[in-house]
Amino acid sequence: MTTADAGHEATSTTRELIQAARDARTIELGHPHFTGMPCSPNHPGFRMTLIRRHGDMVRPDGGSASNEIIVTGGHVGTHVDALSHVSHDGLMHGGIDAAEAQTGGSFSALGAEHTPFLLTRGVLLDVAATKGVEVLPAGYGVTADDLRQSAARIGVELARGDVALIRTGWASHFADPPTYLGQSAGVPGPTVDAAQWLAEAGVVTTGADTTAYEQIQPGAGHAVLPVHRVLLVESGIHIIEHLNLEEASALRLTEFLFVMAPLRIVGGTGSPIRPVAVVGA
Amino acid sequence: MTTADAGHEATSTTRELIQAARDARTIELGHPHFTGMPCSPNHPGFRMTLIRRHGDMVRPDGGSASNEIIVTGGHVGTHVDALSHVSHDGLMHGGIDAAEAQTGGSFSALGAEHTPFLLTRGVLLDVAATKGVEVLPAGYGVTADDLRQSAARIGVELARGDVALIRTGWASHFADPPTYLGQSAGVPGPTVDAAQWLAEAGVVTTGADTTAYEQIQPGAGHAVLPVHRVLLVESGIHIIEHLNLEEASALRLTEFLFVMAPLRIVGGTGSPIRPVAVVGA
Amino acid sequence: MTTADAGHEATSTTRELIQAARDARTIELGHPHFTGMPCSPNHPGFRMTLIRRHGDMVRPDGGSASNEIIVTGGHVGTHVDALSHVSHDGLMHGGIDAAEAQTGGSFSALGAEHTPFLLTRGVLLDVAATKGVEVLPAGYGVTADDLRQSAARIGVELARGDVALIRTGWASHFADPPTYLGQSAGVPGPTVDAAQWLAEAGVVTTGADTTAYEQIQPGAGHAVLPVHRVLLVESGIHIIEHLNLEEASALRLTEFLFVMAPLRIVGGTGSPIRPVAVVGA
Amino acid sequence: MTTADAGHEATSTTRELIQAARDARTIELGHPHFTGMPCSPNHPGFRMTLIRRHGDMVRPDGGSASNEIIVTGGHVGTHVDALSHVSHDGLMHGGIDAAEAQTGGSFSALGAEHTPFLLTRGVLLDVAATKGVEVLPAGYGVTADDLRQSAARIGVELARGDVALIRTGWASHFADPPTYLGQSAGVPGPTVDAAQWLAEAGVVTTGADTTAYEQIQPGAGHAVLPVHRVLLVESGIHIIEHLNLEEASALRLTEFLFVMAPLRIVGGTGSPIRPVAVVGA
Repeated sequence: MTTADAGHEATSTTRELIQAARDARTIELGHPHFTGMPCSPNHPGFRMTLIRRHGDMVRPDGGSASNEIIVTGGHVGTHVDALSHVSHDGLMHGGIDAAEAQTGGSFSALGAEHTPFLLTRGVLLDVAATKGVEVLPAGYGVTADDLRQSAARIGVELARGDVALIRTGWASHFADPPTYLGQSAGVPGPTVDAAQWLAEAGVVTTGADTTAYEQIQPGAGHAVLPVHRVLLVESGIHIIEHLNLEEASALRLTEFLFVMAPLRIVGGTGSPIRPVAVVGA
Repeated sequence: MTTADAGHEATSTTRELIQAARDARTIELGHPHFTGMPCSPNHPGFRMTLIRRHGDMVRPDGGSASNEIIVTGGHVGTHVDALSHVSHDGLMHGGIDAAEAQTGGSFSALGAEHTPFLLTRGVLLDVAATKGVEVLPAGYGVTADDLRQSAARIGVELARGDVALIRTGWASHFADPPTYLGQSAGVPGPTVDAAQWLAEAGVVTTGADTTAYEQIQPGAGHAVLPVHRVLLVESGIHIIEHLNLEEASALRLTEFLFVMAPLRIVGGTGSPIRPVAVVGA
Repeated sequence: MTTADAGHEATSTTRELIQAARDARTIELGHPHFTGMPCSPNHPGFRMTLIRRHGDMVRPDGGSASNEIIVTGGHVGTHVDALSHVSHDGLMHGGIDAAEAQTGGSFSALGAEHTPFLLTRGVLLDVAATKGVEVLPAGYGVTADDLRQSAARIGVELARGDVALIRTGWASHFADPPTYLGQSAGVPGPTVDAAQWLAEAGVVTTGADTTAYEQIQPGAGHAVLPVHRVLLVESGIHIIEHLNLEEASALRLTEFLFVMAPLRIVGGTGSPIRPVAVVGA
Repeated sequence: MTTADAGHEATSTTRELIQAARDARTIELGHPHFTGMPCSPNHPGFRMTLIRRHGDMVRPDGGSASNEIIVTGGHVGTHVDALSHVSHDGLMHGGIDAAEAQTGGSFSALGAEHTPFLLTRGVLLDVAATKGVEVLPAGYGVTADDLRQSAARIGVELARGDVALIRTGWASHFADPPTYLGQSAGVPGPTVDAAQWLAEAGVVTTGADTTAYEQIQPGAGHAVLPVHRVLLVESGIHIIEHLNLEEASALRLTEFLFVMAPLRIVGGTGSPIRPVAVVGA
């Protein structure tokens, strides 16, 4: 029997990938998921509850298992929005009728099972660092100019297929839910022209270290979500929320291999994720 | 301002990784997660329910959003076991006392938040193909010899840090839950000596395309789980279950870059995942 | 200070009620709710999971508490249907537009919060006993004549405001879920003319000891639910399902004080209940 | 066939009960259960989510059904504590070992399935009215003397088997969750001597219109729960929380027929309820 009969020998590119990965370093870009984590009031919070604990049922050989039930929203903690998440005037991305697609209680089009696995270049647009602050002010609108300057500062030009991650520094408020969620004081986030600039650059996905990937004005709440419209509805670009870019910033990351493996939740509108940056030795 | 002040320029290894990834191809290794998917009676099934649908609340600008609540076990659909999942004689991996670690209702040690992100070599041990069958018989025990022959057939030797995926062909029964779950007729799976062989080879994680990663004899149910003991408790090796290796087998994959990004569910015993194989062009 | 200033002295009727209740006997008419209980595949099953157990957190004085999370459908175990549960040609009871009422994800009309608390006469129509069998055959249609004979047999005439409970004996299959749910062999239940007869008699609520309060033919499943249409949509009569009338039958109950206190679940379509019969000493 | 063969003719006491109930009036003593209702941070909140809506699946005859999934704690909204809820020094009521009883993840003793259906005399101890205030101050301790005076004021003496409901007026804060839950300012509630007085009087159950049935001092949270110990552990008396006694107070109720039908949740620690007062015409 020859190898050829048995399976396709790995190509040299595959071998290079494996080799390059071997000594790579991984930097977490999200928060862990835990019971009680900060959560927008629009979504059910995350809860992991053990059903069985060790000792509840001991098998004849001394073995025992523990397992859990998880109750969570699809937009809780670090997660990515499916294109089904938002519609405008009744239509989702590509002009798909939202009412029709959701009939039956699950999206027959643009559901979370279509959110791509990504292994592509990621770029850290560290707006807080570019502005010379630890964290952007509550309610601050991140403009296209801010993004342009943040890219220029690290000498990177966004290219088609990239993932652009915007750091506001807001993740440093994560342990303080009222501030982090910004119900009264607001949250910094990209403006419509920033979103349009990213769409023109051809990014496949973009994310930020805040709850809404929108500029939330003090006291205004999430009245309208224009950036979601530009990205999800008009451009088919997925949005990642609740990133934690503090370690990436401390390490002064610029470009990296971005990896995201969203769950293929059939008919859903989002998926929790564990995004990471991978950099060579 | 110089690039050096702004952030660390990507190393050449990072650039190689990004470049290699650019033209790579992704093969899904798991099932999508959907309401009503086959699920062991030991675990709560997966359910995605839309809370809000488009049109439920239309914002002043014509925008509308949909979101969901997800209720699921941690061991439902394609998932990976944390080391907290199984204990033996009251002890988990490394001799950690299970009763103590689980006090409070969440594992203070070996919880799912410690299951590693993986970007490493994966090897497909296609036992069904090696045996010349479409699918192994119900209740069949996959031995160390079966794994050795499957590796030899593709000319691959397992190395420390690899991920070994065992294909029994059982995923072809996925649409037929009674057969797939094997309550009466059993399920094929690795025997203790197969697990020991993998542990000696130094794999970091191993998985199979069945519900239990155990040889389930007809009518026996999951009376004892000796392979879980060998891998999780004695060896600290994570187990992936409910893989779907049909496409990987049809493509005759052998070695590939294996990617898995389990959710860091604090204190949990497992996480749903979307594992993929990445191969060069 | 006089009693009159302080509160209204109980009336003699109130005192009689209290006195009559004092020596009354209670007979349970439903099943307990437990994890894993038989459940129609149309609904999420019932699950009670302890979150905290005693000892997880011990307060300074030695006190400790345990509590749970409950995940359940609204139509699981012994429960009562709200009028929002069923529509016909887009309309619910009273011609209310179903699509409009459900917008927002909660019924703005006919929701479960409107299902009445009942303390009224209940009548046991023991069709199985009337037919001289332990349990009616699978798929049997209980007719108006069957109900008439069952009422005549106990010398009771239904009156406006009564609750009519139909015993088929099917609860004796409760411990055998495949038979009880009748996916393949069917389930006995009232026919359309039986429902019409009950509606004409003016009952406020009716129930049975089966999963669907419908005649389910072998292999047919719940293709159409004509009795639900007659009762819920056309007549505004609530339906109780999954009763357990075995003890009531063994005690040869005929008339009794029926008590049901459905949860006022705002905008819901049903509520789990614990219905009881109360009889004098 | 005679009636005697067919079933036991209703006794005259049963007929009196039915007759007395006929013209009775019902007063709700609890809050409806709705998504987003105030909930102690110790418990998962209540959420009712429609799974299917009318129109999602239309049957051949034009019929359609809607149903839901409910996720809730057992101690959310108006509910009653099972005796398994609290332990002291590892023991529950009657000296039952808590750790042993909860093994398996469900209480094998004192679970919610044992909480009795009640149809008995209820007495409204309107402490706020007795004190001449709309609502008692945050953190106020309701003493045995307060209860004695409230009973004397309405000329009622508590008797064995009664249900004693304590009104603080706090339900008027229900629409203002921070105040209602009293995280910072506290909540009024019975003191240990009040609980002992009720236990000596022989009540079977007692309740109040607050979240904890304890005196919660400002800023202190639920550090210790001495009244739970006295009632649940030492006396086997069930506790009802989150009552709404505003209407009962406005109607100046004193004595009434109290009805409560807690779900028999097997192995649980509490049940949502819909308690009512019934008074004669």
